[in-house]
Amino acid sequence: MIHENLSINNKGELCVAGLSTVDLASKYGTPLYIMDENKIRDNMRLYNEGMKEVLGDDFLVIYASKACSFVRMAQIAKEEGIGLDSVSIGEVYTAKAAGFDMSKIFFHGNFKTDEDIEAAIEEGVGYFVADCMEEIETIQYFAEKKGVKQKILVRLTPGINPDTFEAVNTGKIDSKFGFSMIGDNAEKTLLKVLSMPNIQLEGFHFHLGSQMFDSEPLVDGAKIILEFMVEMNKKHGYEAKILDIGGGCAVRYTEDDEKIDKKKWIMHAVTGVKKECERLGIKVPFIITEPGRSLVADAGTTVYKVGCVKVIEGYKTYVAIDGGMSDNPRYALYKAPYTVMSANNADKEATVKCSVVGRLCESGDIIQEDVYLPECKRGDMVAVLSTGAYNFSMSSNYNRVHRPAVVMIKDGQDYVAVKRQTTEELLSGDVR
Amino acid sequence: MIHENLSINNKGELCVAGLSTVDLASKYGTPLYIMDENKIRDNMRLYNEGMKEVLGDDFLVIYASKACSFVRMAQIAKEEGIGLDSVSIGEVYTAKAAGFDMSKIFFHGNFKTDEDIEAAIEEGVGYFVADCMEEIETIQYFAEKKGVKQKILVRLTPGINPDTFEAVNTGKIDSKFGFSMIGDNAEKTLLKVLSMPNIQLEGFHFHLGSQMFDSEPLVDGAKIILEFMVEMNKKHGYEAKILDIGGGCAVRYTEDDEKIDKKKWIMHAVTGVKKECERLGIKVPFIITEPGRSLVADAGTTVYKVGCVKVIEGYKTYVAIDGGMSDNPRYALYKAPYTVMSANNADKEATVKCSVVGRLCESGDIIQEDVYLPECKRGDMVAVLSTGAYNFSMSSNYNRVHRPAVVMIKDGQDYVAVKRQTTEELLSGDVR
Repeated sequence: MIHENLSINNKGELCVAGLSTVDLASKYGTPLYIMDENKIRDNMRLYNEGMKEVLGDDFLVIYASKACSFVRMAQIAKEEGIGLDSVSIGEVYTAKAAGFDMSKIFFHGNFKTDEDIEAAIEEGVGYFVADCMEEIETIQYFAEKKGVKQKILVRLTPGINPDTFEAVNTGKIDSKFGFSMIGDNAEKTLLKVLSMPNIQLEGFHFHLGSQMFDSEPLVDGAKIILEFMVEMNKKHGYEAKILDIGGGCAVRYTEDDEKIDKKKWIMHAVTGVKKECERLGIKVPFIITEPGRSLVADAGTTVYKVGCVKVIEGYKTYVAIDGGMSDNPRYALYKAPYTVMSANNADKEATVKCSVVGRLCESGDIIQEDVYLPECKRGDMVAVLSTGAYNFSMSSNYNRVHRPAVVMIKDGQDYVAVKRQTTEELLSGDVR
Repeated sequence: MIHENLSINNKGELCVAGLSTVDLASKYGTPLYIMDENKIRDNMRLYNEGMKEVLGDDFLVIYASKACSFVRMAQIAKEEGIGLDSVSIGEVYTAKAAGFDMSKIFFHGNFKTDEDIEAAIEEGVGYFVADCMEEIETIQYFAEKKGVKQKILVRLTPGINPDTFEAVNTGKIDSKFGFSMIGDNAEKTLLKVLSMPNIQLEGFHFHLGSQMFDSEPLVDGAKIILEFMVEMNKKHGYEAKILDIGGGCAVRYTEDDEKIDKKKWIMHAVTGVKKECERLGIKVPFIITEPGRSLVADAGTTVYKVGCVKVIEGYKTYVAIDGGMSDNPRYALYKAPYTVMSANNADKEATVKCSVVGRLCESGDIIQEDVYLPECKRGDMVAVLSTGAYNFSMSSNYNRVHRPAVVMIKDGQDYVAVKRQTTEELLSGDVR
């Protein structure tokens, strides 16, 4: 199996963390997002351990919660001593509802509205990861109004183009994110920020992209930022305390993807950063890393019910399931690969080549093309693996379908983390 | 202007149906979906008039509500004497909340779950547009259980490949939708359906795709189905009462798209169908058409606030707005074209070539690339035109952003049709 927490029981049913996905689907209905809490905690611990081994205590792992944000997820992060990367006031309020320590929240994003900035300062959010000068000026305005000094990091774009695909590639020069380092743009930014009375510049952030199997680009990125830090210290006496190296560790979506040792991945990155600091003769700054997808993707499995099987002679076979781009738009958006398998006949040989398509009224509503399943019929169940990231979080009510529930498994016990949307909730905004 | 209900006032502000988009944005906040109710009603009337001129009273226009479904929209359709094409039980319940006549609802979709079928029969939904045999067997089961005879249409795929793009192309042979007409598949289907005691087969449906500038493919499609109907009448004495020719009229998204006369478009289609019937020597069946996008797209405008403007020297200029793929994923999904303009400086020359990008933490979060805006800065407003279809309906809470409000304009008065999502609603499913 692609992940070690998956197994097949003696009825031929796919199990997650020891529990039958068929039983869970019967209990909670389909489509159903299933998440393995122990796996999430293990992933978080791998990062914490890897960072600690190299850096001692001078680090913080923060969860990029856009990958999968709901109250229970924030509680798990809190319990594991993980901070939060929040990209909207909605994510900040999610953390608040989880009783999260606001000082460990890093407010990210290329455009934070005036209202969001004011609200986040009001809530005592620890850091803004500032993405543009307009934002910093707005933070200054509201911090002054409230009479506080607001800590920020400045996001720089080092111009590294990691080997990943376009939509999630954010560290290259031509990016909507961060401050360009072309010419003296970063230096001018620094000087301007340092002149602002209610802003406390704690350091710098960069993020290269996601789905990176090799963490070496993070070292390359850090090198550029560290050299900039040394130069700024020399020229202006500014010493950055924090370097936030982003995230981007790849997830194994199919057997074709190599297995990734997350601990090694992050250790390689921060060891490289540490060496760069030694080379430059500087103290290693407080290091932050921001895994998102790699903390949760492999902890998630979606289970669907099959509705019909259509054999279009001479063309292909369609297996339609009771979800689709409304709960997983990633194939429609990026042709993202996933492993698809039978949930109730997981022990049968997968002999039928097919396209697994959704129930939505749109031809592009496809979960995966050219996969193999055993012979199946209406009522059978199909599982899509590694759906813990960017499935629930990207879900929509397209076609007015209800958002599925998220069920967590902890120590062999299942519980509801997010309830299935009710019709009342679905129509709650509609004025009658 | 691209649509005749758009104008610019003497302050240089873009107006929809005579109301300033800047005033509406100030009153309701941004992002804001603005919809012109009169325009929607005009569009509906164009179809009703066109159909009536050719067909007399033997027709029904049904709104493909997946384009934009909320209670008020269903009320408008009801008031205009339009039926509804619903693709989920959520859309059926939306119609119910609008007091819609259930007998004028056509329940579409390639996979209706057992629960949805049972609930729809319970609600007295007029017709199922049956997409596969598994569905018809399930309808038979629940109709028998309830002791009713359920009316259905059977969806056939005539194998026409209209000149449109892949994701919305549904009438070709290789499709997840409908019953293939290869060999004797359609005939076998017919005979099986006719043998089912609780199923009343009223006729046939086909749908070729969307964004068609020319309605001639509908005539080609109808020809295939009509010939099949004649053959089935001869061979089995089955006379179909209804022919549902689908929809697909194109929308003018940019100035490059030609202007479309919707009335002419549908008249051309049904005149062709009528002629085909004459040629075949048969009575013209009751004709249904299912416009969706073309009833609402050009009635919609989205207004955003600008958050920052980034000039990446030697590359491009990014204008970031306070929405994105969470309220309009169509560029991310299909690179769909839209007309983008300044809302508050609509009279200024658009001299700055830029990419208009969203606020979400994803590089692919783009509204439109290589468009022109006047010089702009934080606080300025940008309008995206023709967003009435597949924007609200495809919206998500990705990044946990709140879903925007929908404001309607009727006879110069604005009112809220869908309230902006509250934080309480955003977190309503999260178990704490």
